[in-house]
Amino acid sequence: IDSKLPNVGTNIFTTMGRLANEHNAVNLSQGFPNFGADPKLLQLAADALKGGYNQYAPMQGSVSLRIKISEKIETLYEKTYHPESEITITSGATQAIFTAISTFIRPGDEVIVLKPAYDCYEPAIEVFGGKTIPIQLEGLNYTLNWNTFKSAISSKTKMVIINTPHNPAGTIWNEIDMLQLQEILKDTNIILLSDEVYEHIVFDGKQHESVAKYPELASRSIICSSFGKTFHVTGWKIGYCVAPKALMHEFQKVHQFNVFCVNHPAQEALAKYLETPEHYLTLGQFYQEKRDYFLNAILGSRFKMIPSSGTYFQLLEYSDITNETDTEFAERLIKEYKLASIPVSVFNLDNLDNKQLRFCFAKTNTVLDQAAEILNRI
Amino acid sequence: IDSKLPNVGTNIFTTMGRLANEHNAVNLSQGFPNFGADPKLLQLAADALKGGYNQYAPMQGSVSLRIKISEKIETLYEKTYHPESEITITSGATQAIFTAISTFIRPGDEVIVLKPAYDCYEPAIEVFGGKTIPIQLEGLNYTLNWNTFKSAISSKTKMVIINTPHNPAGTIWNEIDMLQLQEILKDTNIILLSDEVYEHIVFDGKQHESVAKYPELASRSIICSSFGKTFHVTGWKIGYCVAPKALMHEFQKVHQFNVFCVNHPAQEALAKYLETPEHYLTLGQFYQEKRDYFLNAILGSRFKMIPSSGTYFQLLEYSDITNETDTEFAERLIKEYKLASIPVSVFNLDNLDNKQLRFCFAKTNTVLDQAAEILNRI
Ligand SMILES: CSCCC(=O)C(=O)O
Ligand SMILES: CSCCC(=O)C(=O)O
Repeated sequence: IDSKLPNVGTNIFTTMGRLANEHNAVNLSQGFPNFGADPKLLQLAADALKGGYNQYAPMQGSVSLRIKISEKIETLYEKTYHPESEITITSGATQAIFTAISTFIRPGDEVIVLKPAYDCYEPAIEVFGGKTIPIQLEGLNYTLNWNTFKSAISSKTKMVIINTPHNPAGTIWNEIDMLQLQEILKDTNIILLSDEVYEHIVFDGKQHESVAKYPELASRSIICSSFGKTFHVTGWKIGYCVAPKALMHEFQKVHQFNVFCVNHPAQEALAKYLETPEHYLTLGQFYQEKRDYFLNAILGSRFKMIPSSGTYFQLLEYSDITNETDTEFAERLIKEYKLASIPVSVFNLDNLDNKQLRFCFAKTNTVLDQAAEILNRI
Repeated sequence: IDSKLPNVGTNIFTTMGRLANEHNAVNLSQGFPNFGADPKLLQLAADALKGGYNQYAPMQGSVSLRIKISEKIETLYEKTYHPESEITITSGATQAIFTAISTFIRPGDEVIVLKPAYDCYEPAIEVFGGKTIPIQLEGLNYTLNWNTFKSAISSKTKMVIINTPHNPAGTIWNEIDMLQLQEILKDTNIILLSDEVYEHIVFDGKQHESVAKYPELASRSIICSSFGKTFHVTGWKIGYCVAPKALMHEFQKVHQFNVFCVNHPAQEALAKYLETPEHYLTLGQFYQEKRDYFLNAILGSRFKMIPSSGTYFQLLEYSDITNETDTEFAERLIKEYKLASIPVSVFNLDNLDNKQLRFCFAKTNTVLDQAAEILNRI
């Protein structure tokens, strides 16, 4: 069979998840909470099921949910997206990203991707015959060299994908970054795809800089977010994206033929749950405590901690421990020590190996203790 | 903005649904039941929510659900699809279709589509730069001229899409059709995409001929089905597809980057619900009664009934009533008579207008009575 993605195997999350299960390992690999969602949210979903929300939702998403999203963005980022024409509920942020790429990328188009990058961007670009122009973020802080970025732009550049807070690096972009980006893009027609699924998971009093806050950027942007990440329900597969009307109009043309619409009862439950902004406003604090709990528990280990300002991932550097590649070491950690993580090289340009593993700390303290016990003994 | 789908507007279901709401019309347009799903199924979904199925499902779908699907197909069609490698749960059959097209269609590839056709096939082909080769089904029975079909095949033909039971025609293909198809495809590499979402809705003692029953066809086929249609939960957005391992492997490469996985609690509920095959085995009888109820109620009308052997749609021909195009008449029916249907021309080649409207009879008898009362008075 003639393959459009000859070099793609099963993705790293499925692979590591399987291996973790086989070896009955403490699983800090794929990013998902091992604790339950708020019972109040689950009750709202059960109510929606029984309350008759079991037929198609509107193609763009439930009206009530789109209104709540619009209000949220207005409050947090002072930008108005019209529920009627500028918001679409998607089957997770992944589907929003795939559909955005479907909508705009044609054979030969170039898309700038900053590496390390979440693994769904590049295959999606490839499926449409587009060309990924990867730029490696540099150093312990994974910083972008803006000159490199600027020179990567060509007449073929159709889209730039950014991600803040950043998975797997745990970095966030600040106002200066955003203004730099704005300056470079301002005289182009480049579409900006902004993956902000960890927007509510930011630590140490820092602030998420949404593209929505920057009018010149927002006017060319599709911004994606995720209720799975925000409300501990990754398995519901409800995310959303917002964009100015003209972009969203094209997006919805494809969206309606990709999934048509998404799970209706879950949308109704989320709309009600969003009536209490505390549900997401407290998330940063919640995960900051998890991060600190985890880091404190491994103070005695030989791993070096890479500072994390957001997301629910922690990078640990292990060059003092072994010369193995991160993939080899990650596999051995599962098999010998029963602890699963994600090797960062899979996200890097040319699989650059910085001897770092990614650990998801969206786990109960019991599980974090188990992981720490192992890490301290390696 | 440079559009990949310049000729696509909002699709017919969204358009007619909106118009129906605005005019408070009896809505027999978009295909969905207006009655509730089995309370037992809803309870299973509520249990799954409370029972901790709120994080990512496996990328291919819940194991228990894939096993149940495999068993069902084995029992009904005597074909084994391995749960581990030949079945994927999708966000509705629509996502299965879009993903199948994503996986295999490259610029210049030709895809044969039989018209009238459900409206998601062609835009999906277009997004990937493929070329739709449409063939109009002919006459009151919407029959395929096999010679026309044969001559439509070229060296560029990558895929053929079929749909039985057929939306909107309500026809089903029999064994002779399947053997014809098999004969024509047998020495080619053409992939067959078989849309069988109404597989359990077949009337009058007839039988659904799944592609799965025909080994030579099955070996080149992706077969799609839908729990939304089968269990009255179109809003859950859970469908699936099956294919031989090599095809499914390529499909999953794209699927994992399009949606990654689909709503987990709904999958768990469906797996349990499938333990009782009566839940789908009785569906044909259920909808046959609906069809007969509706047809009996409009015996006195001036509309001509087109025989329907499957699906939950009934075509009615109105050439004795007016010369209006079907789009004009469908609009007027909503505005003047408060009854919403779908004009069939939107599905036809070159919008061929046979003066037929499609009515969805997946409605309570009360609603069917309301619709009949209107139809009888036109
Ligand atoms: C869709 S699987 C990925 C979950 C995740 O975001 C991660 O682990 O990086
Ligand atoms: C996804 S909307 C379409 C519902 C349907 O199958 C139809 O009305 O034909």
